[in-house]
Amino acid sequence: MGLVVQVSETSLRGLCTGLLEVWGVPSEAARLQAELLIEAELRGLPSHGVMRLPRLLKRIESGLADPETKGRQHWRAEAVLEVDGLRALGPVALMAAMDALAPALPQTGLAMAAIHNSNHIGMLAWYAEAAAERGLIGIIVSTTEALVHPYGGTQAMLGTNPIAIGIPTADAPFILDLATGQVSMGKIHSHALRGEPLDEGWAVDAAGRPTRDAEAARQGAIAPFGGAKGYGLGLAVELLVAMLAGSELAPGIHGTLDATHPANKGDVLILIDPGASSERAARLSAYLDMLRSSRALDPASPVAIPGDGGRKRRQAALRDGVDIPEALLNELRSLRENA
Amino acid sequence: MGLVVQVSETSLRGLCTGLLEVWGVPSEAARLQAELLIEAELRGLPSHGVMRLPRLLKRIESGLADPETKGRQHWRAEAVLEVDGLRALGPVALMAAMDALAPALPQTGLAMAAIHNSNHIGMLAWYAEAAAERGLIGIIVSTTEALVHPYGGTQAMLGTNPIAIGIPTADAPFILDLATGQVSMGKIHSHALRGEPLDEGWAVDAAGRPTRDAEAARQGAIAPFGGAKGYGLGLAVELLVAMLAGSELAPGIHGTLDATHPANKGDVLILIDPGASSERAARLSAYLDMLRSSRALDPASPVAIPGDGGRKRRQAALRDGVDIPEALLNELRSLRENA
Repeated sequence: MGLVVQVSETSLRGLCTGLLEVWGVPSEAARLQAELLIEAELRGLPSHGVMRLPRLLKRIESGLADPETKGRQHWRAEAVLEVDGLRALGPVALMAAMDALAPALPQTGLAMAAIHNSNHIGMLAWYAEAAAERGLIGIIVSTTEALVHPYGGTQAMLGTNPIAIGIPTADAPFILDLATGQVSMGKIHSHALRGEPLDEGWAVDAAGRPTRDAEAARQGAIAPFGGAKGYGLGLAVELLVAMLAGSELAPGIHGTLDATHPANKGDVLILIDPGASSERAARLSAYLDMLRSSRALDPASPVAIPGDGGRKRRQAALRDGVDIPEALLNELRSLRENA
Repeated sequence: MGLVVQVSETSLRGLCTGLLEVWGVPSEAARLQAELLIEAELRGLPSHGVMRLPRLLKRIESGLADPETKGRQHWRAEAVLEVDGLRALGPVALMAAMDALAPALPQTGLAMAAIHNSNHIGMLAWYAEAAAERGLIGIIVSTTEALVHPYGGTQAMLGTNPIAIGIPTADAPFILDLATGQVSMGKIHSHALRGEPLDEGWAVDAAGRPTRDAEAARQGAIAPFGGAKGYGLGLAVELLVAMLAGSELAPGIHGTLDATHPANKGDVLILIDPGASSERAARLSAYLDMLRSSRALDPASPVAIPGDGGRKRRQAALRDGVDIPEALLNELRSLRENA
């Protein structure tokens, strides 16, 4: 795995924003894209962090990502925004859609954006948190390349199809962000790199046989999480997004893991105004506190609330710095120097 | 378990509708409530079928269910309907909300109803299917009594918090309906009745110890499905519904499993107009066919699509009749005769 070094969030942010700007990304868009990657690092999700940047720069170079556009927005109905991303950076198109939806909410109460033809939107929790910071409930779903097999099947036919839900409370917001696969392909790759066996039930090989060999699994498919139920949820996301965004279904999706194809997945964002409900928000917070202090299976591991772990890791990383593989840091620095 | 007899769907429907009418339920409401229970029987979900009827009649008798109201609807925003169910029958309040939302959709594109103070809404798939039959995407979530423990916890703190999603396609609609518990409390009860051991990981006893003893599990809590991810989803439903409907959180919920308390859970319905998209609907159907014919782990069990199994069971039950415990049938008939 090579050496890992600690870099301050500030210096990493400067490096990434600078690189994006050199590659022609306007400063506000560069700020958004860099923040998305760095927030993933801070929360301990390096698979969605700065390791994505060199590939993104290549996509900009080859025209697969247009650093200047926010996409073309079209209101299909009073509360439904259709977005042709025009190859925009993922967070740029999605945050522009959120900015466009928010003013509709006082009137309609909820609103939805369906986006196709934009680049990878990265860690969904970031958007859920952005919605909650505005006092809104945010639901984000997205599709990906085919990596997950159906329950009872053995071929990669579904995306990892993540779901994020952000709900404001009287304290920190509830932030759920989960992929509907049992594990991420990133985790399979890192097991392969370290030569570690996979857990039982994580994956099948190219012939469809259950395997604990990470190398074999890379050519195969990941199991859905939670058996038939998780499969059903991942499939619902697959269909919802394709139906609403007009994007491809998993077997035809490319462009979030390569530097050679346009990104033809889709993203759907729903925002809901929870209404004037400070009493309800306080009840949610009190309930979450009851959960945190409820009896734990292992007294050393208290019951956790989705979002808590990420926030704790973020605080530590802001204090101690972000762990980055030295090779990756060198690659980014050399890109900057040779630009 | 006693004897099981087969009853035709028509005669069961007549019996249930007649009983409801004798108990003062207006004929259209009786038709809806009976259809909901019988559709659960037809699809092989007897825990949400006619076994619920005697208790519902008791709730009507004692004023916990008002057979005549559809609830009080209030548009909080152009696309958000708040409903005080006024103790309405669950399907009556929810279908009235669906009827009220649908006309808003051509203008707003999506709309939501949040309902509190209505009775049990039963099998969610029924509503998802009703939405899909109107050419709409339907998302329904609901809360229940505390039956499920948090991931890493051992106390029943969450409801089974089901999620249903209906998506129209060019063929039969995609109908997902899942509870966020690993199993239903109904299944625990039926294992207890038969003296069968539970599967590993299904439940804990009252002291929080993992157990395979169904009797002990009845006093304990059910595991969330899919580990931390399923727990997160169930918790998201818990918070979303309480926030939007103003209903109770699980530890304070009663009234869907007893005949003594008002039902203070909540239900949320979101309808989305998928737009003029016959080409997209055809793509979804083609993709679902690809999934059905994709390589199966066990060649004797082809890959299934959520909703397929229920439809098949329904066809068979319409032809062969519905399996009903004789004791339950006798109870219903005697209620009818002695009314």
